[in-house]
Amino acid sequence: MMNPNRLFSPEPQLTKLARELYDSVAALPLVCPHGHIDPRLFSDPRATFGSPVDLFIIPDHYVIRMLYSQGIALESLGVPRVDGGSTETDHRSIWRLFCENFCLFRGTPTGIWIQHALSEEFGIQEKPTLANADQLYNAISQKLATPEYTPRALFNRFHIEVLCTTDAATDTLEAHQALQALGWGGRIRPTFRPDAVINLDTPDWRQQIEQLSEVSGVNVIDYSSFLQALEQRRAFFKKMGAVAADHAALTPFTRELPRTDAEAIFQRALKGQFNPEDAVRFTAHMLIEMARMSIEDGLVMQLHPGSLRNHNALIHKRFGADRGSDIPMQTEYTRSLLPLLHKYGNDPRLTLVLFTLDESTYSRELAPLAGHYPAVKLGPPWWFHDSLNGMARYFDQVMETAGLYNTVGFNDDTRAFCSIPARHDVWRRSSANWVAGLVARHIIDLEDARQMMADLAVNLAKRAYHL
Amino acid sequence: MMNPNRLFSPEPQLTKLARELYDSVAALPLVCPHGHIDPRLFSDPRATFGSPVDLFIIPDHYVIRMLYSQGIALESLGVPRVDGGSTETDHRSIWRLFCENFCLFRGTPTGIWIQHALSEEFGIQEKPTLANADQLYNAISQKLATPEYTPRALFNRFHIEVLCTTDAATDTLEAHQALQALGWGGRIRPTFRPDAVINLDTPDWRQQIEQLSEVSGVNVIDYSSFLQALEQRRAFFKKMGAVAADHAALTPFTRELPRTDAEAIFQRALKGQFNPEDAVRFTAHMLIEMARMSIEDGLVMQLHPGSLRNHNALIHKRFGADRGSDIPMQTEYTRSLLPLLHKYGNDPRLTLVLFTLDESTYSRELAPLAGHYPAVKLGPPWWFHDSLNGMARYFDQVMETAGLYNTVGFNDDTRAFCSIPARHDVWRRSSANWVAGLVARHIIDLEDARQMMADLAVNLAKRAYHL
Amino acid sequence: MMNPNRLFSPEPQLTKLARELYDSVAALPLVCPHGHIDPRLFSDPRATFGSPVDLFIIPDHYVIRMLYSQGIALESLGVPRVDGGSTETDHRSIWRLFCENFCLFRGTPTGIWIQHALSEEFGIQEKPTLANADQLYNAISQKLATPEYTPRALFNRFHIEVLCTTDAATDTLEAHQALQALGWGGRIRPTFRPDAVINLDTPDWRQQIEQLSEVSGVNVIDYSSFLQALEQRRAFFKKMGAVAADHAALTPFTRELPRTDAEAIFQRALKGQFNPEDAVRFTAHMLIEMARMSIEDGLVMQLHPGSLRNHNALIHKRFGADRGSDIPMQTEYTRSLLPLLHKYGNDPRLTLVLFTLDESTYSRELAPLAGHYPAVKLGPPWWFHDSLNGMARYFDQVMETAGLYNTVGFNDDTRAFCSIPARHDVWRRSSANWVAGLVARHIIDLEDARQMMADLAVNLAKRAYHL
Repeated sequence: MMNPNRLFSPEPQLTKLARELYDSVAALPLVCPHGHIDPRLFSDPRATFGSPVDLFIIPDHYVIRMLYSQGIALESLGVPRVDGGSTETDHRSIWRLFCENFCLFRGTPTGIWIQHALSEEFGIQEKPTLANADQLYNAISQKLATPEYTPRALFNRFHIEVLCTTDAATDTLEAHQALQALGWGGRIRPTFRPDAVINLDTPDWRQQIEQLSEVSGVNVIDYSSFLQALEQRRAFFKKMGAVAADHAALTPFTRELPRTDAEAIFQRALKGQFNPEDAVRFTAHMLIEMARMSIEDGLVMQLHPGSLRNHNALIHKRFGADRGSDIPMQTEYTRSLLPLLHKYGNDPRLTLVLFTLDESTYSRELAPLAGHYPAVKLGPPWWFHDSLNGMARYFDQVMETAGLYNTVGFNDDTRAFCSIPARHDVWRRSSANWVAGLVARHIIDLEDARQMMADLAVNLAKRAYHL
Repeated sequence: MMNPNRLFSPEPQLTKLARELYDSVAALPLVCPHGHIDPRLFSDPRATFGSPVDLFIIPDHYVIRMLYSQGIALESLGVPRVDGGSTETDHRSIWRLFCENFCLFRGTPTGIWIQHALSEEFGIQEKPTLANADQLYNAISQKLATPEYTPRALFNRFHIEVLCTTDAATDTLEAHQALQALGWGGRIRPTFRPDAVINLDTPDWRQQIEQLSEVSGVNVIDYSSFLQALEQRRAFFKKMGAVAADHAALTPFTRELPRTDAEAIFQRALKGQFNPEDAVRFTAHMLIEMARMSIEDGLVMQLHPGSLRNHNALIHKRFGADRGSDIPMQTEYTRSLLPLLHKYGNDPRLTLVLFTLDESTYSRELAPLAGHYPAVKLGPPWWFHDSLNGMARYFDQVMETAGLYNTVGFNDDTRAFCSIPARHDVWRRSSANWVAGLVARHIIDLEDARQMMADLAVNLAKRAYHL
Repeated sequence: MMNPNRLFSPEPQLTKLARELYDSVAALPLVCPHGHIDPRLFSDPRATFGSPVDLFIIPDHYVIRMLYSQGIALESLGVPRVDGGSTETDHRSIWRLFCENFCLFRGTPTGIWIQHALSEEFGIQEKPTLANADQLYNAISQKLATPEYTPRALFNRFHIEVLCTTDAATDTLEAHQALQALGWGGRIRPTFRPDAVINLDTPDWRQQIEQLSEVSGVNVIDYSSFLQALEQRRAFFKKMGAVAADHAALTPFTRELPRTDAEAIFQRALKGQFNPEDAVRFTAHMLIEMARMSIEDGLVMQLHPGSLRNHNALIHKRFGADRGSDIPMQTEYTRSLLPLLHKYGNDPRLTLVLFTLDESTYSRELAPLAGHYPAVKLGPPWWFHDSLNGMARYFDQVMETAGLYNTVGFNDDTRAFCSIPARHDVWRRSSANWVAGLVARHIIDLEDARQMMADLAVNLAKRAYHL
């Protein structure tokens, strides 16, 4: 069994307080308003998790990037090549390679999540090593073959109240339709992510637009019909249960274009004649349009800027996106968001949830923005910062200025289904550390502390995302 | 009664050490070399603090920004509109709204300050809630009506040794003249803040220049007479007890202009024909001129860059400046200050006190600059960072490189008179935490620790500001 | 005697764990793969450390910058002037000035290092004061005059396994040749540092090129012969025991030039006609060439960007380089290194060790880069950040994302020989604090913890530098 006091501040009084606070929320359901789980896992009754390698290694870019950084080829981990080139297919030997190198994850969130999943989901208390690799592989495989380990069974066992997926604007949401038919519609919801049609530099942008025309029934031939098609998709997503839209952009730069400029850029893009500056300006403009639509239809607007995607061109070419080679950049919010906030920041109908990979913006820009504008809220520590220390820095640098109630609780943002309970557990334990510290320093009383814990664990997320 | 160990590190040995160190300075007077209290509160014998709302809410942009961020209109908080539009006038109902939402301040410095003031100044130990709002309002109102709660009485009770105000270059300092006549001249001192005449983009800059001519007796018609007028004002402020000048600028950029360029820009500005780049260059130049004047007249030069003022144009238009919508920006000191430091950084007659809202500059730029240049000292954590965690980050990131003796102790920088004791108390407790940590790790001995505490509480500020 | 638990986290359980972990590595030898000790100290049998002032003050820019920041002239500290102007020669009085001002180092790493050296190397337990200055001076002087205090004796006593120096590309490595003859070749090794020939804006660049021609035997008349000469020098350094190259640059900007552009810039430089942009582009290009050579010859490539050297022109003019007036700047790695990493980042033969003075890049850029690219590793906290808090921030912000095994352990990077044991001791104690925290939070077990300690103390450095 994992130590029940794991991750708590080790000072005995703090451990005791944190434990008590953690226990007060440990049994609450998981609310997951933002993530990347494939809905077909649940809509398709025949879906399984595959082998231990399919479950824990191949889809988890946190795992494969660390192994790759130490010279282990992605081919030898079974990561499929874009060109169909040969990769390792013996999952047992991939698992051995992983276990042999599990020491690389010492002190990392991935190490914590995997040990949590092994222990709490598969009853395995040992840390993976070359010596026990086969035994672990067998134990996991056997469990995965039982009815208690189907995706739907684990969804229930994990006590997930609601799980939002992330879906392209052009997605027909068939899996979600099937889930609605099954009565799971309220439990698994889509999220509207229009990056591929909004960012003109998407490699296959014109195909995306054709697809948008097709699924929306609006013939996209100009900027006006483009907006109409987007509005149609948002309405459809909302009907299918969506509560939010999600936007990635290289930077949070916003600036409204005169209508004629937006139209001119859009026409150039349709002809494949736009330049990089057009793409920057169009995205900057469309973020403001998206805020307007969010005000109109009530979908929460999430913005995740600052990741330079596919920094490693070799990996991108050979294995595609989301393979661990996205690298963060400096990000500027104060001036970049000014035009959007000037127009809509005072509108209480807008909820703009900001995320960052640049922690220097926590205390400098994000907390002051969230602590002033009615429309701005802060998302939880994102990606690399979704970790024990990352959360401690977030509580430290954000909360005094933004105030807890201008944040939106936790989301796991994960592609690794089995890591969901572990990630929420780390959040709840980190939250308990923070709140216990406030009690121990006599800044708040226990009554406030308990309320804050419930807010951090569940209420803030439900409130922000209208769940 | 508030817990006497509040805000201390909760590890028992550290608590004990911090408490002992804190106790050694707790009775020392408050030295306040930088702030924004209105001197008329003390010069006018009839001045009062008004209602609990006048005291705690309306003038405190920390309070109103947090309430506004959660959708509470500033009108409903009684904040006066620029256009004279109607706002809530029932202070008792404003107070109720505040108490009902006091939970928003959980874990924030504002929460700490207000609870300190209620407890230590008004004897109220309860945390504000909707249920006790009326009772608290009555208790505070009754006290405020007594002679023990006049501004002068509280000034004495707070044990303030000296309080510096912040005053426009064009201010005639009538309140300070009255205070001198009362024998309070050494206790309340003006500070010379010439931003409005130096920054050409001040909205009413030409009127400011006219006013400068009038109060200085120097007809400002060109750059030379502008400098003369400034020197006249500095001499007048110094005569009135000023020990420092204070400069805000969007960035710390400095660059000396050839005299003819400075003159040309000034002439364009007089004609209303300057461009934004002129304004940037003129401020950059004038900061170097201000350093020269500081060397000549001995006024400490304070520089507070990095705040994008009035980010929320709607709030600025409706309610004016200082309503909680100033948002920090990335700030660069190393290259920006190079010209000023090249010219005057080695001059021991200059004390240039630097502040920042960009904490990433603490360890990267500010501590190395202060740890080398004789003229450079670091101000305490500023504004959003004037908090328990902000101070911990400051001690952590600044002290090893800058050295304690290149910092200037604390200043409260506040517009909220009743928060002064609380703010100094947080500083002294934070200082005790830092120093106790050094003792507990055997880095310094108790003798050094006690000296450092006295320096942090009082001596550094008095020495830096020649008080 | 210094307290055996110094620098450990003061919570009793953490102290005990950290102590146990520290003790497990305290006796391991010192591995010093990067530093600035003069090899002649060891090659010349007559070399001595001189006076206490020669040992502790004059060569230590950490010491003199702090004293200078408080208005103490470098002349009065005996720092030699470039122009041969007069400086204080009475070392006893310099020592007194230092002891009188030792309070300036309270809480600084310099304070810790000096007290460690006094205690552990000279048996002096008192903290320096004006009162004991003479007594300390005598005690140190007497010891320095004995055979136990020659450089070679201390090298042995310090238990240094290997010490790498830093040497110009044009250096003939005579001291290293003498050391090889003495059988010390494996213990003291050169490092190839070609900045002066690669950065075109080196003040005497053309003389440097002439010298390069001379020592390499390659007549450098164009870009091709320049590369040949560099390759000759690298081969020579390698033969003399070098394991690494070291590169300083203002920024980590890299970009490959077409061969004809590189040639054209080089020709302009030979004629003294290059412009600043040429210098930037040439360095950016040469860093990629250096990576290629590192792949070919196996020398580890170290990159230290971000220091604006000689910020204080007065100090530079009067006293030369490395006098404490280098100030860090914002540094950008993600885009800057893209071209180099695009070309060589996936090559397992390259080890690119990155350092930074901009801690905001730890979690944002450096840890993600090191946690993905096989070629990238992170150096330890550098310069201003080589301190107890600096290391804590490094462990906090780097390790979760990069993983311990993408870092290279410690190096002392020092010019102050007597500070070497102290610096490694601080690293080992800080490491013990970090690892103990992971154990106490039940993130790793004691078996992993002990292995990590040995890796942090010695193994990572030996592995990364092939020692």
